[in-house]
Amino acid sequence: MISFVYQNPTEIHFGKGVTEQLGETLIRVGIRKVLLVYGQGSIRRNGVYDRIMKFLKDQAVEVVEHGGVRGNPRLSHVREGIRKAQKGNVDGVLGVGGGSVIDAAKAIAAGSVASVDVWNFYTGRAQPERALPVAAVLTLPATGSEMNGISVVTDEETHAKNALVAPGILNPKVSFMDPEATLSLSPEQTAFACTDILSHIMEAYFTTSATRLPIQDNLIEGVARGTVEAMAAIQSDPADLDARASFMWSATLSWSGICQAGIPNPTMPCHALEMPMSAVYDMAHGAGLSVVIPAWITVAGDRYLPRISSFVGAVFGTYAETPSALAEIFRQYYRTIGSPVTFAQAGTPAPDIERLTHLASRAFQQRNMTDYTPEIIAEIYRACL
Amino acid sequence: MISFVYQNPTEIHFGKGVTEQLGETLIRVGIRKVLLVYGQGSIRRNGVYDRIMKFLKDQAVEVVEHGGVRGNPRLSHVREGIRKAQKGNVDGVLGVGGGSVIDAAKAIAAGSVASVDVWNFYTGRAQPERALPVAAVLTLPATGSEMNGISVVTDEETHAKNALVAPGILNPKVSFMDPEATLSLSPEQTAFACTDILSHIMEAYFTTSATRLPIQDNLIEGVARGTVEAMAAIQSDPADLDARASFMWSATLSWSGICQAGIPNPTMPCHALEMPMSAVYDMAHGAGLSVVIPAWITVAGDRYLPRISSFVGAVFGTYAETPSALAEIFRQYYRTIGSPVTFAQAGTPAPDIERLTHLASRAFQQRNMTDYTPEIIAEIYRACL
Repeated sequence: MISFVYQNPTEIHFGKGVTEQLGETLIRVGIRKVLLVYGQGSIRRNGVYDRIMKFLKDQAVEVVEHGGVRGNPRLSHVREGIRKAQKGNVDGVLGVGGGSVIDAAKAIAAGSVASVDVWNFYTGRAQPERALPVAAVLTLPATGSEMNGISVVTDEETHAKNALVAPGILNPKVSFMDPEATLSLSPEQTAFACTDILSHIMEAYFTTSATRLPIQDNLIEGVARGTVEAMAAIQSDPADLDARASFMWSATLSWSGICQAGIPNPTMPCHALEMPMSAVYDMAHGAGLSVVIPAWITVAGDRYLPRISSFVGAVFGTYAETPSALAEIFRQYYRTIGSPVTFAQAGTPAPDIERLTHLASRAFQQRNMTDYTPEIIAEIYRACL
Repeated sequence: MISFVYQNPTEIHFGKGVTEQLGETLIRVGIRKVLLVYGQGSIRRNGVYDRIMKFLKDQAVEVVEHGGVRGNPRLSHVREGIRKAQKGNVDGVLGVGGGSVIDAAKAIAAGSVASVDVWNFYTGRAQPERALPVAAVLTLPATGSEMNGISVVTDEETHAKNALVAPGILNPKVSFMDPEATLSLSPEQTAFACTDILSHIMEAYFTTSATRLPIQDNLIEGVARGTVEAMAAIQSDPADLDARASFMWSATLSWSGICQAGIPNPTMPCHALEMPMSAVYDMAHGAGLSVVIPAWITVAGDRYLPRISSFVGAVFGTYAETPSALAEIFRQYYRTIGSPVTFAQAGTPAPDIERLTHLASRAFQQRNMTDYTPEIIAEIYRACL
């Protein structure tokens, strides 16, 4: 039996029109001047920006703007945000967007009250002891960042894409989730979100450890089935708001810690394998995952076979027992939802396998996952071709 | 689509030996002098008391004792605890036991810093605005009190058994859950816990509302299946620690709010129907539930038929479509685990139906559940004979 600590204090406001409470909620949690972090401007096009600004102004919350976060948030842009937060003397950071925006908001929140450069937190050379309070308005559900203490940032100079895990420090104080904001997502964005959500759940499920909490399997299978059902409902009717709501909530459930409670050392390394892919080729994280997961199952799935087989049975209702047959079930599912399963389909026909292997090997070494040799890693990347 | 707010800040320490951290954790959350609330002495017999006292003394946490909480915690004993807490000037309240003990600890925590008598919080005449910090060491998993803001107390003079729901005020700051402490539970205690856990999940599932979050069904079905599987494993081997751990965690999952998120007005009133039974006849809450749930399905289940049928299919893997057939599936399950299905089996061969109906009707009126007339309520109680 495994021991664990579980705590997740984030306050979630879920439903139609919940951002109307944004201004007064920020004031309640002590934020009167905020750094507003957002992405490439989609929130200006879909009206979210104007609504947010209105709700903030109505309550006289002062705003310092920091737009321009990219799909894989970049260190230089985070550092620029830290300078703005410090110069503007803000009380908190509000991310409005998807996981990348919220991750960037967290990085800025930790970096702006730190005595060292923020990248030290992402390389493990330092741990943040505190951060400005973070709030989030989620518009693209996928990473679960709205209810966890994780942030992923890419150093665009070295192509290192690293995660900072600081529960209790980085968890947003409050997150707003309005499913209506997701109606404008493209089929592609929704598909990539789906692969990301399912991969989070699988990382908790595909463990080789004999000591686990059996009921977590039931919980994870339930959330995974619900995600697959919501995705199918969205595909048949993109305007189905109940399905959009389920899908949005599935992202939070899958990576907020409740599915991971009692899971010792998740041993499915697909996030670690994918991160060099999106760092070097700037592909969508979800696209990279649907490329690498079947390849990983093909090459390294033999040691997790009963778990993968049990997951496939519980979630997809099909049965297979060889790595290649199980990999093909995933490929088929990803094709169904419109997510790529090869490097070429993901827009990178001739990837530099050696470089990816080098970057991934470094990450595996840092995690002491020595059973993944550079040879095995290279073989997995070749299976993505 | 329904809107909801979800937050649950309780810090859970789960696993073998976790109470070793008790003293230092209390000090970390600001408790240097604590009111120790416990029950009828089982923690003295099974060694939990001695271990707790050692871990508190090791960290020089001062202790004021308040033992003697009964299965349905009584108002007079709560008031006595409030006097002790005030006189002893404690910083917090530690409940060591099952749900009744933790509920009593919460009542004392709220009452000892209130300007009105604590019972006002349970009748709705006042709402607590604050409480002393509560900590819990759970030894009998069932009610989920270790991770929610709910407390149920009985006024033994009037036999009113009322619930106080005050999330954010009553949630324990920290709860310790060591599955080893549950190895000494009797088959009967475990069975009653199982009926209580499943009833919490069903209250969220059996709703007539058309606006719900579909993925919550999957989540609830997963937790319910996990509970049933853990119970079966405990029955075949009471020393199966993984099963005990799953069972313990299922109690927390089922009533901590995560299964209830997005569920508008749960409409299964079995807790309201049971509470007069345990208040008047002092039967175990779980025993009362397994008596009343099949009776409720028989008499009033017709309006929830698709939901009950879907639950039975997902959790028990069987199919039925009439109220009486569905009720019989539950009776059969309760018999299998050893929980009573009639008043007589629960030790009350000749209940006062009129009195129970009167008490329940009052509770239904307070909740504006006018579709349950006294005639229907009496018919449900008669179906328990």
